Amino acid sequence: MLVVQKYGGTSVRDIERIRNVAQRAIDYKNKGNDMVIVVSAMSGETDRLLNLANSIGKFPDEREVDVLISTGEQVTSALLAITLKEMGHDAISVLGHQVKIATDSSFGKARIEKLEKERILEELKKGKIVVVPGFQGVDKEGNITTLGRGGSDTTGVALAAGLSADVCEIYTDVDGVYTTDPNVCDKARRLDRISYDEMLEMAGLGAKVLQIRSVELAQKYNVPILVKSSLVEGKGTLVCKEEMMSMEKVVISGITYSKNEAKITVRGVPDKPGVAAGIFTALSDAKIVVDIIVQNVSRGTTTDITFTVAKTDAKKAYAIMEDTAQKTGAEKVTMDEDMAKVSIVGLGMISHAGIASKMFSVLASEGINIEAITTSEIKVSCVIESKYGELAVRALHTAFGLDDEDVREEK
Amino acid sequence: MLVVQKYGGTSVRDIERIRNVAQRAIDYKNKGNDMVIVVSAMSGETDRLLNLANSIGKFPDEREVDVLISTGEQVTSALLAITLKEMGHDAISVLGHQVKIATDSSFGKARIEKLEKERILEELKKGKIVVVPGFQGVDKEGNITTLGRGGSDTTGVALAAGLSADVCEIYTDVDGVYTTDPNVCDKARRLDRISYDEMLEMAGLGAKVLQIRSVELAQKYNVPILVKSSLVEGKGTLVCKEEMMSMEKVVISGITYSKNEAKITVRGVPDKPGVAAGIFTALSDAKIVVDIIVQNVSRGTTTDITFTVAKTDAKKAYAIMEDTAQKTGAEKVTMDEDMAKVSIVGLGMISHAGIASKMFSVLASEGINIEAITTSEIKVSCVIESKYGELAVRALHTAFGLDDEDVREEK
Repeated sequence: MLVVQKYGGTSVRDIERIRNVAQRAIDYKNKGNDMVIVVSAMSGETDRLLNLANSIGKFPDEREVDVLISTGEQVTSALLAITLKEMGHDAISVLGHQVKIATDSSFGKARIEKLEKERILEELKKGKIVVVPGFQGVDKEGNITTLGRGGSDTTGVALAAGLSADVCEIYTDVDGVYTTDPNVCDKARRLDRISYDEMLEMAGLGAKVLQIRSVELAQKYNVPILVKSSLVEGKGTLVCKEEMMSMEKVVISGITYSKNEAKITVRGVPDKPGVAAGIFTALSDAKIVVDIIVQNVSRGTTTDITFTVAKTDAKKAYAIMEDTAQKTGAEKVTMDEDMAKVSIVGLGMISHAGIASKMFSVLASEGINIEAITTSEIKVSCVIESKYGELAVRALHTAFGLDDEDVREEK
Repeated sequence: MLVVQKYGGTSVRDIERIRNVAQRAIDYKNKGNDMVIVVSAMSGETDRLLNLANSIGKFPDEREVDVLISTGEQVTSALLAITLKEMGHDAISVLGHQVKIATDSSFGKARIEKLEKERILEELKKGKIVVVPGFQGVDKEGNITTLGRGGSDTTGVALAAGLSADVCEIYTDVDGVYTTDPNVCDKARRLDRISYDEMLEMAGLGAKVLQIRSVELAQKYNVPILVKSSLVEGKGTLVCKEEMMSMEKVVISGITYSKNEAKITVRGVPDKPGVAAGIFTALSDAKIVVDIIVQNVSRGTTTDITFTVAKTDAKKAYAIMEDTAQKTGAEKVTMDEDMAKVSIVGLGMISHAGIASKMFSVLASEGINIEAITTSEIKVSCVIESKYGELAVRALHTAFGLDDEDVREEK
C-alpha cells in the first residue's frame, strides 16, 4: 500500500510528539507500506510568525507573508526527517518547490494546479520515508505560496490523489468525526464512515475536523480519508464515497451547531431585480462573510431578507444595512445578536420524506422557536435563540436515533 | 552605485531594528543607488533551531539540519521585505533557490560555485529593493544547503562579486576593525583601511568581525568590504586590496590575541618521515582542531614537536599524545593548559626588517617568557603564559605606534 499520513500542529508540537509520529510511520513502513508524511507547523508557530508580520503594519505584503509562514512547516519537516533517520530509518524532506506542488499565485489562499510526482516516487523507490511540508506550494514564477488555514489537509489529499495512494490518513487531536459535539451532547458517537457530501456539510457547519477544500479534493479524485487521533489508538472515521457506505440504517449522520451568530433582517425590501445583489455586495465590500440567507416570499411589492453573520461582524453589518435600506427604500432593519444555528446532516434525507418536519417538531416540543430555516439536499439548518443551542443538539441527537451505539458503529 | 548591504543577527533581532535596516536601505535607494540587502537570522534563532535538532540525537542528519536552519534567514528576509513595503518602498525577497545561489553538496559548510544574477538584476530594474537571505544556497539536486557559521558574510560578498557591486557593506555590532581588542587595550583604534591579507590574519586570530571565507572571496574578486555598525553612525573600516591602502606610515596594523589555549609538547620524537603525520592524524581523527604547530630542529635522531589546541580539548589531546608517544617511541609528553597567543599583523613587516625581534624585545622587557614562536609573511605569533596576555597586547600596541591617533586615522 501507498499511504499518505498528515499530522496537524498539536501532533507535532514538540520533539516527543514528533517521535511518536516517526514511530508510527516506521511501523507502517515495516509492514511493507510506502510512506509519505505531510506535516503542519508546530502548534502556535504559524500564529507566532503572523504576529511578527502584523506587528509591522496592518496589511503586510501577501507574497512575503507566505515566504514567512511557510517556514513553520519546513521546520517540522526537517525535524521529522532528522528523527526518522535518528530512529534508524532512511528519510528525506521534500519541500513544496522540490516536489513540486504547483499552485496559482493567490498568496495566502493558493489553489493547487498540478503536482509533479516523480521526485517523491523516486525517493520512495529508494526505500525512504518521504516527509512533505503541508500548506505550501510554488507558483509559475517560483514564488512560495500557501494554501490558507488548514491547507496541510489539502496538501495531504492532493499528494494522495497525485500519487494514487490507497488512503490519506489525517491525524488530529480528535479520534474521528462525531455525530455531534461531545462537549454538548454526551451521547455523541464516533462515526465509522461518512460520505464526502455529508462531511462537506459537517465541515462547513462547524465540525472543524477537516479543511473543507481537502474534502472536495478527496471527492473529486476519490481518495478515501481516514481521520484518526495521533494520541490514542482507534479506528477513526473513514470519509469516502457514498457507494462505500454500508446500508444506511439511519437517515441522519450528524448534528452540528454554531453559536455566536447574529441574525439581521431587512424588512420591506422593494421586490425588484438587483436589490438583493446590492445588499450582499455592500457586505462583501466590507469583507463581511454572510452565512445563511433566507428570502421570504414576496408580499406584493416588497419582501423580507434575512441573513446571518458572525457576531463580531454584527454591528458593522447592521450599520451597512441601515445605509443600504435607506438607499433602496426598504422599510427597516432589525437585528438579533444572540443566535445559534443547528443543522442536521445526512444522505438519508434524500430518500426519506419528513426529515425536515421531524426536526421542526422536535424543536417545537422543546419550546424552541425557529427564526429562520434553510435547507439543502442533505442538510436542514434552523436558526434559533443561542441559549437553546445545546438543548436543541441533544434533543435532535436522541430523536434521530444517534444515541444508540449499535446504530452508528460497524461491528 | 550598486550597493550590497549585509546585516548580522543583532542588527535584525526585532522589528524595531528591522525598521532601522529598512530606513537605511531606503535612504541609500533614494540617493540613486540600487540596493541588495542580505540578512542573517534574528539573533538566537539559529541556536534555537539547532538546539531542537540536537535534542533529537547526537548526529542529526546534515541535509535536514540545513533545511531546518535555513528557515531563520528566510523569516528575516520576509519580515524585512514586508517592512520595506510597509514603509512605502517596493521590495521583494529572493531566496537562495530563487536567486539561485548554486553550491556544492557539503551540507552545513557548502561552498558557493555559481551565482545566477539575472533574477536579482531583473528585480532591481523594476526599482525594487532586493532582500536575499544569507547563509543559504541550493545544490545541483535542488537540496537546500548552508554555508557555515558567519556564512551570511560570504553570501553578501558573493552577491557583490556576482553583481559587480561597487561595495559590500557589512553591518555588525562593532563600528569597524580595531588595532586590537578595545576591552584589553583602551588605546585600541579603529582602522580606516586594512588590506585583505591583514584582515585574513586578523580574522583567523580572533578578531571575529568577518567570516574568513568572505574575506578570501572579496580578495579573489576584488570586492571592497566596508565594515560598519548598524547602531551608530561612523566611517567604518574599508577592507580592500593593498594598492588601495594609503602610504603605510606604520608597519603593523593590529595586535590580536586569544586566551584559553593549551600547549602540548611531544619530546624526543624519532626524526623520521611520517611521525609528524601520525601525531596530527590521531588528533584530527578525534576532531581536535590544532592551531599552531612548531617543530624544533632535530637533535640528531629525535626532535620535539609543540602545538596548541583549545583548552577544552587539552585533556583529550594529551591522552591521545600519550598513546601516540608510546607507539612512535617518543620520550614524553608535556602540557601547559594556561597559554595565550599574541600576534602582530601587518603588511609592513614584509619590507621592514627587525619586526619580529622588536616584538620579542618588547615581550622580554615586560618579563614575559616566550614559549613558542611561529611566523608567516605578515604575522608573528608568540605563545605566552595566559596571565600575561593583556599586558603583552598593551605593550605591543604602544611599541608599534598604534596608540597615536594621527598614525591610524585618515584625516
